[in-house]
Amino acid sequence: MAPALLLTGIGELVTNDPHAEGAGPAPVHVVRDAAVLVEGPTVAWVGPAAAAPAADTVLDLGGRAVVPGFVDAHAHLVFGGDRAAEFEARMSGTAYAAGGIRTTVAATRASSDEALHANASRLVAEMRRQGTTTVEIKSGYGLTAHDEARSLAVARTLTPETTYLGAHVVGPEYADDPGGYVDLVTGPMLDACAPHARWVDVFCERGAFDADAARAVLRAGAARGLLVRVHANQLGEGPGVQVAAELGAVSADHCTHLADADVAALRDAGVVATLLPGAEFSTRSPYPDARRLLAAGVTVALATDCNPGSSYTSSMPFCIALAVREMRMTPAEALWSATAGGAASLARTDVGVLRPGARADLAVLDAPSFVHLAYRPGVPIVVGVVAGGVPEPTLVR
Amino acid sequence: MAPALLLTGIGELVTNDPHAEGAGPAPVHVVRDAAVLVEGPTVAWVGPAAAAPAADTVLDLGGRAVVPGFVDAHAHLVFGGDRAAEFEARMSGTAYAAGGIRTTVAATRASSDEALHANASRLVAEMRRQGTTTVEIKSGYGLTAHDEARSLAVARTLTPETTYLGAHVVGPEYADDPGGYVDLVTGPMLDACAPHARWVDVFCERGAFDADAARAVLRAGAARGLLVRVHANQLGEGPGVQVAAELGAVSADHCTHLADADVAALRDAGVVATLLPGAEFSTRSPYPDARRLLAAGVTVALATDCNPGSSYTSSMPFCIALAVREMRMTPAEALWSATAGGAASLARTDVGVLRPGARADLAVLDAPSFVHLAYRPGVPIVVGVVAGGVPEPTLVR
Repeated sequence: MAPALLLTGIGELVTNDPHAEGAGPAPVHVVRDAAVLVEGPTVAWVGPAAAAPAADTVLDLGGRAVVPGFVDAHAHLVFGGDRAAEFEARMSGTAYAAGGIRTTVAATRASSDEALHANASRLVAEMRRQGTTTVEIKSGYGLTAHDEARSLAVARTLTPETTYLGAHVVGPEYADDPGGYVDLVTGPMLDACAPHARWVDVFCERGAFDADAARAVLRAGAARGLLVRVHANQLGEGPGVQVAAELGAVSADHCTHLADADVAALRDAGVVATLLPGAEFSTRSPYPDARRLLAAGVTVALATDCNPGSSYTSSMPFCIALAVREMRMTPAEALWSATAGGAASLARTDVGVLRPGARADLAVLDAPSFVHLAYRPGVPIVVGVVAGGVPEPTLVR
Repeated sequence: MAPALLLTGIGELVTNDPHAEGAGPAPVHVVRDAAVLVEGPTVAWVGPAAAAPAADTVLDLGGRAVVPGFVDAHAHLVFGGDRAAEFEARMSGTAYAAGGIRTTVAATRASSDEALHANASRLVAEMRRQGTTTVEIKSGYGLTAHDEARSLAVARTLTPETTYLGAHVVGPEYADDPGGYVDLVTGPMLDACAPHARWVDVFCERGAFDADAARAVLRAGAARGLLVRVHANQLGEGPGVQVAAELGAVSADHCTHLADADVAALRDAGVVATLLPGAEFSTRSPYPDARRLLAAGVTVALATDCNPGSSYTSSMPFCIALAVREMRMTPAEALWSATAGGAASLARTDVGVLRPGARADLAVLDAPSFVHLAYRPGVPIVVGVVAGGVPEPTLVR
């Protein structure tokens, strides 16, 4: 048996588990004055500190709040360069010959595997310091079979949640032959990428891929055993959500512009709506209507969309603060969506929750309550993380 | 002569100094590939790294951006308790018998000097980690001569920029005698507080203090040698800005609701408008119109308003990101306002700028450009601080 570590002195423990002993109400099911027993990479026991079992090592957290590690289900971390000048121009309303995503495609192609890994790895570490213990990473800035495959190979060294997004935009070589690009994405590029990916994704939006192209990409991926997720309805209403529902996608991401039929489709097909308010913040766009989705019974996740073009935040606490301020989620709803909701978006049952058998992934807050994630916007209140049962040095020194 | 420390390898140095060698355009006057020589607590030289003088110690920052330490000119850090439940209720639109500021007054009075110091000191340290090297701290949660004076004595151990805000709201004992409370604030309470304060302030707003009461408070403080600042026009139009201009205030803080005559008064009297977008974020209120102020030639500062009721952020980078997103300041304008603007708001010429003779207060960013402060919202990109010439351990280990 692995040596046991007891985390105790937890003033407020967010479990997301209705069956936890002494658990408070949904959605986050808080246990007060709590403890968590960790064995190896796994949670072995959760409950009131007074009833905690013995352990080899005891770590007293001094009344701090503990939450499940954040599950960031949507991030584009494999890229070269940045687009700070484009951001500055957009925010300032000044003219700028923005190359947009193609700027990043060129920089990514020009980057070595080592440089791509160093950049992605830096961002994963930055996320970790902010409490994120599970992150999805997409390709999508290579747009050739070679560059997409090496992007995914880099991602695979950093997370099991890798997503093939060859269909991010039509590759520049295919500007006059978008059908040919779909053939590439569903053929040789898929062959090169499928071994490195768990998911297939497509940007189904005017200017990117229409419904038929999206279906072709997603069906080809699914035929290779990849799980389906879709960039849907970000910039305007469109067929993305309907395609997601039709093809059994686990998640439709963005969901900023939805018709009533889209909300119904998400609910009826059990598709998670993964909302990305960092993108609306950084593009000065209207936010998705989270309350409408919640009222309809749709499962809502929150993620960063971390990418150098439209949302270069890596901070799940920042996304929680935005969700509360701008999307009128309660602090509890926002936290659930950033943890258990993210897990649902990634079809994972072992993360986003603190219960026996789950991964021992959690974040310690320099605060007495999880509410401070929204109450203290912009403040780095995550003081330490336990990931796979291993406490960071910041917690044990 | 003090030993000299050379900070070099600065990819982008924000000087806020038009006379710096190789300086770029206003407002931030960037020098690229720069170095800063520090002697004791003071900047001795600024310029291109290639021209840097010799030094006893050299610290290479590897191409990172460096900015003047943030000057947070408006913070309420001496208090007991928090108001997380009130925040949660306000954001969720649910009923809550909020005691508002009086909740904090009761908790502050019930706190020992040691507890008040520990809490304020924790927040100053949190600010420092986020790049703030100068902070103003107000009283205003004691509302008796004894509790205001001990609040300021605590503040004085943490900063020279202490502000007497006995006129925050009418003390609870004077609910039926607001005139009597003004007599207290301008009499015995002022006697007790003036020795610990550099500034006098008043919350001139409907429900707090009217123009005549505000004048009485500010004149009494000025007669004791205190510099004048005013909480003005936060919740609606009112006389606050006019009173500030009339009495020679250095700064009018908030400035959210301004008539054209108010903008003109700020400009004509040379009063700094210190904007506090964290308060609008955390109360879901409309933001001040920074562009209107800038167009009129008013000096604009940015500060956190850090307090447990309406803005519990301690993050100047977060305020910069809000200023860019919500108030349409350019990243350069927002950074200037958070550094040199803050210095103007505090009548300081030795901070908020990196030039020979200024205090060696600066923040090192894990980014190639200051633009990342807005481009990467919520991300703790300040990786280290030099304060009074002393580099933090994070920079030298």
